[in-house]
Amino acid sequence: MSPVASLRRKLTAEALGTALLLTTVVGSGIMADRLAGGNDAIALLGNTLPTGAMLVVLITMLGPISGAHLNPAVSLVFWVRQEIGRMEALAYAAAQLVGAVVGVMVAHAMFATPLLQVSGKIRDGFAQSFSEGVATFGLVLVILLTLRARPQAVATSVGLYITAAYWFTASTSFANPAVTLARSLTDTFSGIRPEDVAGFLTAQIVGAVCGLAMARALIPRETPAVHAEQGCSMMRE
Amino acid sequence: MSPVASLRRKLTAEALGTALLLTTVVGSGIMADRLAGGNDAIALLGNTLPTGAMLVVLITMLGPISGAHLNPAVSLVFWVRQEIGRMEALAYAAAQLVGAVVGVMVAHAMFATPLLQVSGKIRDGFAQSFSEGVATFGLVLVILLTLRARPQAVATSVGLYITAAYWFTASTSFANPAVTLARSLTDTFSGIRPEDVAGFLTAQIVGAVCGLAMARALIPRETPAVHAEQGCSMMRE
Amino acid sequence: MSPVASLRRKLTAEALGTALLLTTVVGSGIMADRLAGGNDAIALLGNTLPTGAMLVVLITMLGPISGAHLNPAVSLVFWVRQEIGRMEALAYAAAQLVGAVVGVMVAHAMFATPLLQVSGKIRDGFAQSFSEGVATFGLVLVILLTLRARPQAVATSVGLYITAAYWFTASTSFANPAVTLARSLTDTFSGIRPEDVAGFLTAQIVGAVCGLAMARALIPRETPAVHAEQGCSMMRE
Amino acid sequence: MSPVASLRRKLTAEALGTALLLTTVVGSGIMADRLAGGNDAIALLGNTLPTGAMLVVLITMLGPISGAHLNPAVSLVFWVRQEIGRMEALAYAAAQLVGAVVGVMVAHAMFATPLLQVSGKIRDGFAQSFSEGVATFGLVLVILLTLRARPQAVATSVGLYITAAYWFTASTSFANPAVTLARSLTDTFSGIRPEDVAGFLTAQIVGAVCGLAMARALIPRETPAVHAEQGCSMMRE
Repeated sequence: MSPVASLRRKLTAEALGTALLLTTVVGSGIMADRLAGGNDAIALLGNTLPTGAMLVVLITMLGPISGAHLNPAVSLVFWVRQEIGRMEALAYAAAQLVGAVVGVMVAHAMFATPLLQVSGKIRDGFAQSFSEGVATFGLVLVILLTLRARPQAVATSVGLYITAAYWFTASTSFANPAVTLARSLTDTFSGIRPEDVAGFLTAQIVGAVCGLAMARALIPRETPAVHAEQGCSMMRE
Repeated sequence: MSPVASLRRKLTAEALGTALLLTTVVGSGIMADRLAGGNDAIALLGNTLPTGAMLVVLITMLGPISGAHLNPAVSLVFWVRQEIGRMEALAYAAAQLVGAVVGVMVAHAMFATPLLQVSGKIRDGFAQSFSEGVATFGLVLVILLTLRARPQAVATSVGLYITAAYWFTASTSFANPAVTLARSLTDTFSGIRPEDVAGFLTAQIVGAVCGLAMARALIPRETPAVHAEQGCSMMRE
Repeated sequence: MSPVASLRRKLTAEALGTALLLTTVVGSGIMADRLAGGNDAIALLGNTLPTGAMLVVLITMLGPISGAHLNPAVSLVFWVRQEIGRMEALAYAAAQLVGAVVGVMVAHAMFATPLLQVSGKIRDGFAQSFSEGVATFGLVLVILLTLRARPQAVATSVGLYITAAYWFTASTSFANPAVTLARSLTDTFSGIRPEDVAGFLTAQIVGAVCGLAMARALIPRETPAVHAEQGCSMMRE
Repeated sequence: MSPVASLRRKLTAEALGTALLLTTVVGSGIMADRLAGGNDAIALLGNTLPTGAMLVVLITMLGPISGAHLNPAVSLVFWVRQEIGRMEALAYAAAQLVGAVVGVMVAHAMFATPLLQVSGKIRDGFAQSFSEGVATFGLVLVILLTLRARPQAVATSVGLYITAAYWFTASTSFANPAVTLARSLTDTFSGIRPEDVAGFLTAQIVGAVCGLAMARALIPRETPAVHAEQGCSMMRE
C-alpha cells in the first residue's frame, strides 16, 4: 500500500470517527433534553452514557487504522512526542474538524432541526475555562499512562474518563478543540456560544501540555516510550 | 456432526437469540414505561440499559455457534461479503423473524398483556427514516471494523453502540429488519405502526449497504478480510 | 490441602458471596426506594446497577475458589451435569441459604431497620411465575453457553444478564431460590410475601431445567463439555 | 533508576491519583446535586457513575507505577501483608492525604465555590459506622481475592464494587480514610462533618482488618500469595 493511500485512509478514519462522535454528543443531547421533562441531571445522564459508550466503540474500531485521536489536542501531543509528523498532525486536525462539523449536521437532520445553527448557550468565566484545562489535562494523562500500562485498555479508559468528566467538571468536559468548534454550530443542549470558544480552546491546549508534562514525570526515562501506533496494533492481540 | 445438524443448530441459535433480544426490548420497554411516571427520558434509560447489556451477553454466548447475527441486515452483509451462502442467509433471516415474533409474545405473557397486538405508535417522516439509515450504517461499520481490529470486542462494541444509538438517533435505533417487523406487533413503549415499517426497512437496507461500502474504503485490499466465523472462533481464546 | 479443608473453603466462599449479594440487593433497594421520591423507575435503576455490578465482582473473585454458583438452581444444574456430587450440591445450597439470610440482616443493620422482618410485598399470579421461569431459563443458558464460548466472560455476562432481566421480566428476576427465600425476610423494596415464595421456587426449577435442555440442544455432543471448575480456573489466565 | 527516584515517582502517582479521585467524587457530587432538582436518587446516580468509572481508569493507569492504592486502608493492608515496608506505607498515606485535599480544592475551583470549606453534613450513629465497616471489609476482600483470582481485573472490580457500595451501604461507602478526611473539607453533596470523621475512620480500619482476615481464610496457605506489585505488573500483559 502506498503511503498516500495509507494517509488517505487514516484521514478518512479520523473524519468519520469524529463525525460519529459529534453525531452522538449532539444527537443524544437533543434526545435527552426533549425527553427529560426539565430535569437537567436526567438529561445529562442521557447525554453521558451514549458519549462514553461511543468513544469506546470508535477507539476500538479505528485505533488500528489511524490511532483514533479524534481530537486535535491529542494529535498535538503525539506530534510533540514525535510519534507523528507536523504535516500529518495538521492534516489530522483538519480531518477531525471537517468530520465534527458534518457530524453536527447529521444530528440536526435526524432530529428535523435546521442543519446550520449558531449556539446561544453561555459558557464563560474562569470556572468554565479552568474546568476545560483540568478535563484535557486528565484526558492526555489517561491516554499516555494507559498506553504505557495496558495499551488494549485505552479505548475503555477514555470512554470511562469522559463519562466521569461530564460530571466532575463544571463545563461538562469538552476537552477537544474540534468538538468545541463544532458544538458552536448547534443551538441545542450541547452547544456553546461562538464567543466562548476561544477561552475553551486556550484552556484545552494548556491542559494538554500540562498533561504531557505530568506523564513525563511519571514515566521513567530509561525505558523507551511505547509508540502510539504500536500500542494500537497491540490492541489487535 | 453432519452439515444439516450444524445448520439446524445455527438456526436454533439465531431464533433463540433474536427471541431473547425482543423479549428484552419489549419487556423492558413495558416495565420502564409503567414505572417512569411519565418521564420519557427515565423510561428510555430503563429500556436502553437492558438492551445494550443483553446484546453483549447474546453475542458472546452465541457467536461461536451461529455468528450471532440476530439481524437480517447483518446476514445480508455477510452474504454480500460471501461469508455465508444465499440459502443460509435466507434461512438465517427466517429464523430471526420467527424468533423475534416469539420473543415479543413472551414479553407480553410476562406482563399479562394480550399476546397478539398491533402497534399504534407513529414513527414516520424523513427524520425517522434518515435516523434508521444512520443507525444501520453505524452498526454495520462497527461490526466489520471491530471484527478486523479486535474480534473478541465485537459483542461489547455492538452492545455499547446500540446503547448510544438509542439516544443519538430520533428513531431510537431499531437498525434491524426482524426487530422492526416484530415490534409492529406490540402496542407498547417500543412499538411501531405497521404502516411505518416499510420506510424503516428500506432505510435499514440502504444504511447497511453504505456501511459495507465505507468499511471497504477503510480496510486495505491486500490484506485478506478476516472471515466472520473465524473472528467468532477467536472469541473463544 | 485436605479435601475437607477444601470443601470448607468452598462453602465459606458460597456463603460469603451469597451474603454480599443479598446485602447488595436488599441494601440498594432500601437506599434507592428512600431517595427516589416515589419514582419507581429511578428506584429500580438504583437497585439494578449495584446488583449487576456486584455479581461481576463476586463471580470474578470467588469463581476460582468455589465456582461462585451463589444460587441453588445453578448448583442443581451442575449436579445434573455431574460436575459436582449430590452431597456437595446440597452443602452448597445450604451454605447459600445461610449466607443469603445473613446478608439480608446485614443490610437491615446498615439501614437501622429491624433485623428480622417478614415481607408483605405481593408477587403472585401466572405472569410473575412465568417471569421467574423465563428469567432462570435465561440465566442457566447464559452460564452454560458462555462457559463454553468464553469462560473468562461468565462473570461479566451474568452481571449484564441480571441487569437486563431486572427490567425485561415482570418479577424483576429473582432467578435464585436462596435469594427468593431470603427476600421473604425483608419488608422493603426488594421483598416478597412468604406465601408467594413457593410459586417462584417452582418456576425457577422448571426454568433451570429448560435452560439446561436448551443448552444441550445447542452444544454438539461429540465435543466433551467443559468442566465448570476448569472453566473457572481458565479465568485466572 | 535509583530507589529514591522510584519512590518519588510512586508518591507522585498516589498523590495525583487520589487528587483525581476526590475531584471526581466532590465535583460530580456538586454537579449532580445542582442539576437533580431535589431528587436525591438521581443526584446519587450522577455521583456514582463518575466515581466508579474514574476508579477503573486510575487503577488501570497507575497500577504499574505505585500499585494504585489511593487509600491508606489499602496501604495498611499491604503493609500487614509485608508487601510494602512501614515507612513506605506511611509515605503513601501522607501522599494520598495531600492529594485528596488538593483534589477537593480543584473541584471547588471548577465549580466557583470557596476553596476552603468545612462540611456541615451529619453522618453519625451506629448504622453509619457499621456501613463503613462493611464497605471497607468488602473493598479489601475484593482487592485481595481478585488480585489472586485474576489480577488484570482488579481495576474493573474495584470500580464496580464502589458503584454497588454507594447504594448498598447507608453511608454511601467512603471506605477510605484519606477520602473521609478530605470530604470533611467540602460543604457540598459529598461532605461529612468533622466531628463524624473519627467514627468513620475507626470503622474503616476495623473493616479492613476483618477483610484481610477473611481473605486469609479463603486463600489456601501452601500456595505462595501473589505479591501485589507482581499482580499489577501482570496487568501490563
